[in-house]
Amino acid sequence: MAGTQLSSSGPAGGDGSAPTAVISPSEELPAPDEGELATLRQIGRRWASVLIDDPERFTRLPVNPALGRFSLEPAPTRFGRFARILMFRPGERGELVATEQATEESTRSGRALAALKRAIVGPPLASSAVVQERMRKLVALAVLSSDVLSSVAYGPEAMLTALVAAGSGALSLSLPLGGALVLLMIAVGMSYRQTIRAYPNGAGSYIVASDNLGEVPGLCAAIGLMFDYVLTVSVSIAAGVAAITSALPEWRPLAVPMGLLVIAVLLAGNLRGVRQAGNLFAAPSYAFMLAMYVLIAVALAQAAQRGFSPVPPPPIAPTEALSAMLILRAFASGASSMTGIEAVSNAIPAFHPPEWRNARTTLSWMVVLLVTMFSGLTLSIHLNGLVPSADETVLSQLAHRTFGPGPLYGYVQATTAVILLLAANTAFNDFPRLLYYMARQQHAPRIFLRMGDRLAFSNGILMLAVTAAAIFTIFKGQTESLIPLYAVGVFLAFTLSQVGMVVHWWRRRQEHWRLSLFFNALGGGLSAVVLLTAAVTKFTEGAWIVVIGIPLLVWTCLRIRDHYRRIQRVTALHEVVDVAGKGIVPARPNVARRELEESPDEIRHLLVTPIAQMNLPALRALAYAASLGQPVLAVHLSPEEEEARRFRRQWQIWGNHLPLEVLVSPYRAVVPPLVHYLRALRAQRPNLVLTVIIPEIVVRSFWQRLLHSQLGDRLRRTLRLQRATVVTTVPFHLPE
Amino acid sequence: MAGTQLSSSGPAGGDGSAPTAVISPSEELPAPDEGELATLRQIGRRWASVLIDDPERFTRLPVNPALGRFSLEPAPTRFGRFARILMFRPGERGELVATEQATEESTRSGRALAALKRAIVGPPLASSAVVQERMRKLVALAVLSSDVLSSVAYGPEAMLTALVAAGSGALSLSLPLGGALVLLMIAVGMSYRQTIRAYPNGAGSYIVASDNLGEVPGLCAAIGLMFDYVLTVSVSIAAGVAAITSALPEWRPLAVPMGLLVIAVLLAGNLRGVRQAGNLFAAPSYAFMLAMYVLIAVALAQAAQRGFSPVPPPPIAPTEALSAMLILRAFASGASSMTGIEAVSNAIPAFHPPEWRNARTTLSWMVVLLVTMFSGLTLSIHLNGLVPSADETVLSQLAHRTFGPGPLYGYVQATTAVILLLAANTAFNDFPRLLYYMARQQHAPRIFLRMGDRLAFSNGILMLAVTAAAIFTIFKGQTESLIPLYAVGVFLAFTLSQVGMVVHWWRRRQEHWRLSLFFNALGGGLSAVVLLTAAVTKFTEGAWIVVIGIPLLVWTCLRIRDHYRRIQRVTALHEVVDVAGKGIVPARPNVARRELEESPDEIRHLLVTPIAQMNLPALRALAYAASLGQPVLAVHLSPEEEEARRFRRQWQIWGNHLPLEVLVSPYRAVVPPLVHYLRALRAQRPNLVLTVIIPEIVVRSFWQRLLHSQLGDRLRRTLRLQRATVVTTVPFHLPE
Repeated sequence: MAGTQLSSSGPAGGDGSAPTAVISPSEELPAPDEGELATLRQIGRRWASVLIDDPERFTRLPVNPALGRFSLEPAPTRFGRFARILMFRPGERGELVATEQATEESTRSGRALAALKRAIVGPPLASSAVVQERMRKLVALAVLSSDVLSSVAYGPEAMLTALVAAGSGALSLSLPLGGALVLLMIAVGMSYRQTIRAYPNGAGSYIVASDNLGEVPGLCAAIGLMFDYVLTVSVSIAAGVAAITSALPEWRPLAVPMGLLVIAVLLAGNLRGVRQAGNLFAAPSYAFMLAMYVLIAVALAQAAQRGFSPVPPPPIAPTEALSAMLILRAFASGASSMTGIEAVSNAIPAFHPPEWRNARTTLSWMVVLLVTMFSGLTLSIHLNGLVPSADETVLSQLAHRTFGPGPLYGYVQATTAVILLLAANTAFNDFPRLLYYMARQQHAPRIFLRMGDRLAFSNGILMLAVTAAAIFTIFKGQTESLIPLYAVGVFLAFTLSQVGMVVHWWRRRQEHWRLSLFFNALGGGLSAVVLLTAAVTKFTEGAWIVVIGIPLLVWTCLRIRDHYRRIQRVTALHEVVDVAGKGIVPARPNVARRELEESPDEIRHLLVTPIAQMNLPALRALAYAASLGQPVLAVHLSPEEEEARRFRRQWQIWGNHLPLEVLVSPYRAVVPPLVHYLRALRAQRPNLVLTVIIPEIVVRSFWQRLLHSQLGDRLRRTLRLQRATVVTTVPFHLPE
Repeated sequence: MAGTQLSSSGPAGGDGSAPTAVISPSEELPAPDEGELATLRQIGRRWASVLIDDPERFTRLPVNPALGRFSLEPAPTRFGRFARILMFRPGERGELVATEQATEESTRSGRALAALKRAIVGPPLASSAVVQERMRKLVALAVLSSDVLSSVAYGPEAMLTALVAAGSGALSLSLPLGGALVLLMIAVGMSYRQTIRAYPNGAGSYIVASDNLGEVPGLCAAIGLMFDYVLTVSVSIAAGVAAITSALPEWRPLAVPMGLLVIAVLLAGNLRGVRQAGNLFAAPSYAFMLAMYVLIAVALAQAAQRGFSPVPPPPIAPTEALSAMLILRAFASGASSMTGIEAVSNAIPAFHPPEWRNARTTLSWMVVLLVTMFSGLTLSIHLNGLVPSADETVLSQLAHRTFGPGPLYGYVQATTAVILLLAANTAFNDFPRLLYYMARQQHAPRIFLRMGDRLAFSNGILMLAVTAAAIFTIFKGQTESLIPLYAVGVFLAFTLSQVGMVVHWWRRRQEHWRLSLFFNALGGGLSAVVLLTAAVTKFTEGAWIVVIGIPLLVWTCLRIRDHYRRIQRVTALHEVVDVAGKGIVPARPNVARRELEESPDEIRHLLVTPIAQMNLPALRALAYAASLGQPVLAVHLSPEEEEARRFRRQWQIWGNHLPLEVLVSPYRAVVPPLVHYLRALRAQRPNLVLTVIIPEIVVRSFWQRLLHSQLGDRLRRTLRLQRATVVTTVPFHLPE
């Protein structure tokens, strides 16, 4: 079952059934379990019996591997002189610890690239700098709510845009629809309160759905959230840019470059490891809240002076009939106002203890903020009779009409733009972390486990930036056209996580389980309604991409998992069993016996050196081969008998010191005859391990490489596919 | 001097000073000279003194390298059963000869690619199939003249196009200009007669100019000819397509795809190794000659009926004044009629003996054909008052007016189209051969030495097809706009080759040298005039590309030569000297001493195995390393002290059989700390040779590779740049 898989990876933590949210740079090197360690001990005993003839055989090293502890290594500085630079310092348990100097690349282009990277993201941070941030509730509220609160900047407008298709008369439907959405927000909020209590170590939809519903639902939730994060970046930036171009219409042609610039800045900032550092994020969030409440208060006060009689909207001819479908579409569009509501549940470990209680309180505050802002704005927009326009956002129209063109209007637009950018930044935190969790479960490529120089998940950050920038460019920065894609992914994740909680409560039946189950079922059911509504009503408008994309990506994740599992299975040490005290034999002979054995005494060597000409690189390769003290066979491949004779004469002149076999390839093929010849050699003696020693002239630049045949590379690429064939390259460097 | 370089490569031949035109598939493996062989003998003696302890040490092979002579190797057929397929058969001198079966690729994608290639170009030919074709004079005339005779299909028109810019009145200048061109043709023809006598083994411009004027002039001639060949393909195909679209105007929109299709057919045909097989080429050439002579005869007869009074051309307003510049431009354009006149001099070895005499006779016939056709056509066009038009070639107009729209007109157009395609095919023979000669002199990348499956120079053929197709597409198949580019390259080669002959005669002063020198000086001088005229008058029309391109490409060729010379110098065996009977020491210590030595006794080994996890691939790599019987050091790189401790515990459980050094890399860099550590190890003992043994999981598909870190590849790429560091990959294959 999914539950066992999840808890088997990573250090155990939390309540024992759910995986921990703790992030470690050692995740790339998972620890072996006890069974593997036992097998390791068995294999080691076999080695001991082999090495008994000469127990000190391997302890005589020609060098000191500890480099002479506490000594400094002289290294040339970039000014050409030698300075004593500390590359390694001794660790606490006898290991060598690489210093920052030891991260320097050894090629010139590598160093240039590293310098560029350092200029953008700063110097690397040590692994020990991974710390779990803790936030006060007031800070957490600001940090975590930027995503959901910023959604009110485009949610109501999206709803009106859908309604106005039925003419300006249909706009009055915004009030009942807004009411329904408020109920939805409260239900989902209550539902997440239950989730937080049950998963105090982190209650992301991927974890909750995997844990209770199984692997595929978990993956569906994860992929849904990934769509959400990518689209959050695209939509938030599009809305932020729209807030700016509403105030400064002359910048409108620059909308797409501006958005891409913002993505680039977010990319660089997040690669640097910009944390959700409290004060930096709290101020704009509260500034935005203030702006919204002042705007709502003034707008309602002005409306009160008019006796709350709504300004009639300008007459707009309907382009389609008012239908249930249209109303549902407007509802699904408006539901985008609540994307981001799940942020608190992902971030529980970031609260001060008791984490889950503080997180729950913060979530409640957040829902109150969301509901009041959303309903206040929807009401104010209705009372002012505003209609969506291509040139100016509805929020901008409202602020304009309420405050006039003065500084208060500018304040509203500026805080709106900033909070939208912060919301995009939230996705830059969440997306790579989700990929990390997925990679830890082998559902995503292992590169997403890797922590970059600044302890950020650079690969995930890069992937998000590239994808979001591509989508932003393809849709030319038009918010509305992106929203259909949006709701499906988010509400899929909401639904699955809450349905998962229903299963959770039903299985556990702890205290208060009936009430919790009720709230989760209500939230899940309503989310499912929105999900279906969005998927159906927006299918032709672009939601089909998500509807098709999610199963496709889930399938890909499962294939990735299968591959990693297979690798793990065949490389794991429990592939061998101990037979009758005789040592270790493989449990499945076809795996272990067909290649190199695990014990050194079973290997019979033959070193094969392909030689084209008797030149210095070739003689070095021959000397290298001969010096290893194993049987050596030189092979010369010739296009013609004539040339073969010439080569044999050279070999005789040299002294015929090694066995030589001349292969004539009259069809001038090089790699295939050599491969077939090596196969034929191995066929004579199955336990033979062939080591092909290839002399190779190393040139540095790409252009110089074009002038050489790359035969070594071609040979290596082909030979690596051959069993029990080891490829060795003896380099020949040009003098500087 | 150039002469010595030239004769030092390839088997000696001809008169001893010029290189031979004989082509051999062994050219990729040049034979060492006597000095190198002497050094080889010295080095061998050193090995003998090392191996004296155990002289049979290397003769005990665990397998029979000759594979059990005369035995057949069983191999699985594609139907899954085992069949006895002969991969290798014994050669005459004890070598193994690979059969065609042994050229089969070992990967599935490789086999699919090979099958596709075989479907297009046919099964591979053995090297022994290289034969020097010999042609009778009448066949040779047809084969070699297709290029130059086809030029009269566009040459006169190009001249008229230049003249008509000064209005239709200027068209009458075509007669005196044509007369001057006839004189030029005769002079150049006489000049080439001298060249053929002096270079009976092949008198290509590259060879003649290199031999007499030096390397750079030789390269200039070669690059000029390369421009010529590329443009011959583009211009001939454009003219051939124009001949078709003149007759079938409704096909005009398809001109570019038609031309590209023809290039593709020529490419495939030449990759297949379509030889200039006599009858195939002779028939269309003679058919074209017949067509032209009938056309000229009828046109002149019709004019004679009119009393040779020229039909006045339709009035055309001048777009520029009639100036000396314009006349020179028309002259240079008309000179494109004689491109291809050098064909005979390249092909002397293809004649029956006495080659040079038969070649000279053929050249004379060819010049007669060229002069009569060119002058007849120019006169006929003038007498009929034809002017160039965008829709119909002048030749088509002439045939139309002379024969009406009947079958005779169709015959003229069809033979014109075919001979133009044959001319393009000539370039497909000459261009790759020129590149082969250049590569043999190290002036071009070595891949152009390689003979493909069908013994054609596939790489050169591909390069010509791609370049010509690109030019044809860029110029949208417009012949006229290509002609400015044309004349400069051809006449540069003509001039340099004939000036080279002047130097040749002056140096030798053999019998008749004065007369020969005179003819060559006349031809060279007139060619130089055309060259200058073309370069100056057409500079702004596109000739600047050639004027700038030639020096650039010559510079590139010289850089290529420098690189190859350097490689040859540092890899050659004469880098060592024998010192006082003590053995061999390097002549230049910085070259040979700093890396692996040439004698096996000087190498001190340390095998280093980087291990990430104690899994099956890692244990196999350790077993492989330990079984070689040399000191082994395992290195583990860890991102955290915590993980390092965990690994050390596993190592203890295994039994601590090998020395282990744990490196902690707190900045999570992998490759750089390892490289710095290896450097630090080597710094302790300068004659140490490090062999880095990397365990590697081999996955087959590209997609699977994305799921792995490719650490082995990255490590190998970096370590190959380190001196005295050998990289070995121990593969771990997934079970099928």
